Amino acid sequence: MTLILALDFGGTKLAAATVNAGSQEWLGYERRLSPTNTNADTDLKIMRSLIASVLQGKKPDAISVSFGGPVDATTGIVRLSHHVPGWEAIPLRTLLEEEFGVPCSVDNDANVAALGEYRFGAGQGYDSLFYMTVSTGVGGGWIIKGQPWWGAEGMAGEIGHMVVDPSGPVCLCGKRGCVERLASGPYMAQDAREALLNEPQSRRGRRGEILRELVGDNLELITGKVVSEAATAGDELAGELLYRASWALGIGIGNVANLMNPQRFVLGGGVTKAGENFWAVLQKVARETALPEVNFEIVPAVLGDDAPLWGAVALAMVGL
Amino acid sequence: MTLILALDFGGTKLAAATVNAGSQEWLGYERRLSPTNTNADTDLKIMRSLIASVLQGKKPDAISVSFGGPVDATTGIVRLSHHVPGWEAIPLRTLLEEEFGVPCSVDNDANVAALGEYRFGAGQGYDSLFYMTVSTGVGGGWIIKGQPWWGAEGMAGEIGHMVVDPSGPVCLCGKRGCVERLASGPYMAQDAREALLNEPQSRRGRRGEILRELVGDNLELITGKVVSEAATAGDELAGELLYRASWALGIGIGNVANLMNPQRFVLGGGVTKAGENFWAVLQKVARETALPEVNFEIVPAVLGDDAPLWGAVALAMVGL
Repeated sequence: MTLILALDFGGTKLAAATVNAGSQEWLGYERRLSPTNTNADTDLKIMRSLIASVLQGKKPDAISVSFGGPVDATTGIVRLSHHVPGWEAIPLRTLLEEEFGVPCSVDNDANVAALGEYRFGAGQGYDSLFYMTVSTGVGGGWIIKGQPWWGAEGMAGEIGHMVVDPSGPVCLCGKRGCVERLASGPYMAQDAREALLNEPQSRRGRRGEILRELVGDNLELITGKVVSEAATAGDELAGELLYRASWALGIGIGNVANLMNPQRFVLGGGVTKAGENFWAVLQKVARETALPEVNFEIVPAVLGDDAPLWGAVALAMVGL
Repeated sequence: MTLILALDFGGTKLAAATVNAGSQEWLGYERRLSPTNTNADTDLKIMRSLIASVLQGKKPDAISVSFGGPVDATTGIVRLSHHVPGWEAIPLRTLLEEEFGVPCSVDNDANVAALGEYRFGAGQGYDSLFYMTVSTGVGGGWIIKGQPWWGAEGMAGEIGHMVVDPSGPVCLCGKRGCVERLASGPYMAQDAREALLNEPQSRRGRRGEILRELVGDNLELITGKVVSEAATAGDELAGELLYRASWALGIGIGNVANLMNPQRFVLGGGVTKAGENFWAVLQKVARETALPEVNFEIVPAVLGDDAPLWGAVALAMVGL
């Protein structure tokens, strides 16, 4: 029996679990929210206690980590976390290998989730696939010829910063009209707030009315999810923002289909739960953007909250 | 000694050559222009005579073909040629295998050239690279982990139809602002002609003047090459069109860098000979489009006219 220890440093939550290679049932499983104002040291301390709890004195044969931020997968060095300070250039793989004396793999959550969906989820049987997560950010991970493709320096999959509308709004990355700028939850919420704030009281009409009602006129409470709900309820402003998000994703996916010709796209993350219309637009625009000879399917991810952990298990199995 | 027969069906020219695997010198070499109004049968007949001439009675151990048009590399079936009628669904691999009784590989010229540059040209030592040809069309081919990546159905590499400006001019493919629509030679020439035609005689100024002079006011003679020459000579209209072409390529390359993180981009084709300024813009825009953490180099292809033949040799060696 090969005992795998899977870890998830998720930015706002931490999880550890153990499983025998080949099994699809956890032996041990612990999950905890990160404290507010946490840092890398605190998260590592909490993770050590979760590990002790799931291992119960046993020694794992391999450790595998999903990290919520950019990682150089070839060295296992975390570049940084966008949510938790102190992770800059932390050699997480070496650190865990020295502490536990077993081989360790570390990769970012999108790459890991791609592997997880490939081995255990919506990508089973598809040897070339692109996994995308559309949530607070937009990222992706590759499976090519049944193997993960991390890129020459572990940076592949960054579809979030593909420019799809060079005259679009400015993204934090400095460019205009990136997929992430148009399709991520926080940016949709920001654009909704700004549109409502810039609308003079006197000209308030039906446009945005449902959105306002959903948050009791407290615009700070608008999230990507609220925009989705308002759109579903018929709000025109929210509908436009959600349309633009699915349009941007469709262009991005169509471009990727032309460039890499994978069999399947698997989409996870909160924004992809925005409903039928969101999916219909995305499918249509992707189909129109790809050349007629380029075939592909776009399907929802299935692993949900445990995707990083199951992905970590799959990552460990690549090395076994 | 393994004798490789390399063939190039180039759309306007045909070539056959023989080489011993591992050598970089041709044993036999024949090249001929296709007759005007040629078709698949005529091209095959001419190719057979070139083959007889280079083989001189010897039997090759492998045949490898570069085809100037979309090919399903997994089956060796030509989809069509954009230049020569009659190639629709021709099973070229099977046809040659049955005729010569040896294994045969067939792939499109962009994929083949990618392999050629990887084995013998500007990509030597770079296990992940993207080759692009910018000429009458814009296409590309992948090397990933030292192996060609053709896509799930042999359609990977179609960067030409990546949308980089959704409000740009309409391409033959039906979309707006594809890389090919903005950067290919014939489209640049077409846009130059239209700009000059739409300019009333009375308002003719310096803009486009050099372009007019270069073709003796016969706008039909404008080609991509003429646009490049006029731009180099300081023509404002030509300069704008060339800038737009290098901008589109830069956006495309930066997007691909974010998505796949290859080590190197190798660029071939006539348009890439447009001079220093063209390369400077392309490098700058690609660098700005890619995330700061994503490193890559963009270099010119080196194999020139024999790229398809050397690529075919490299393709044969993949299978040996």
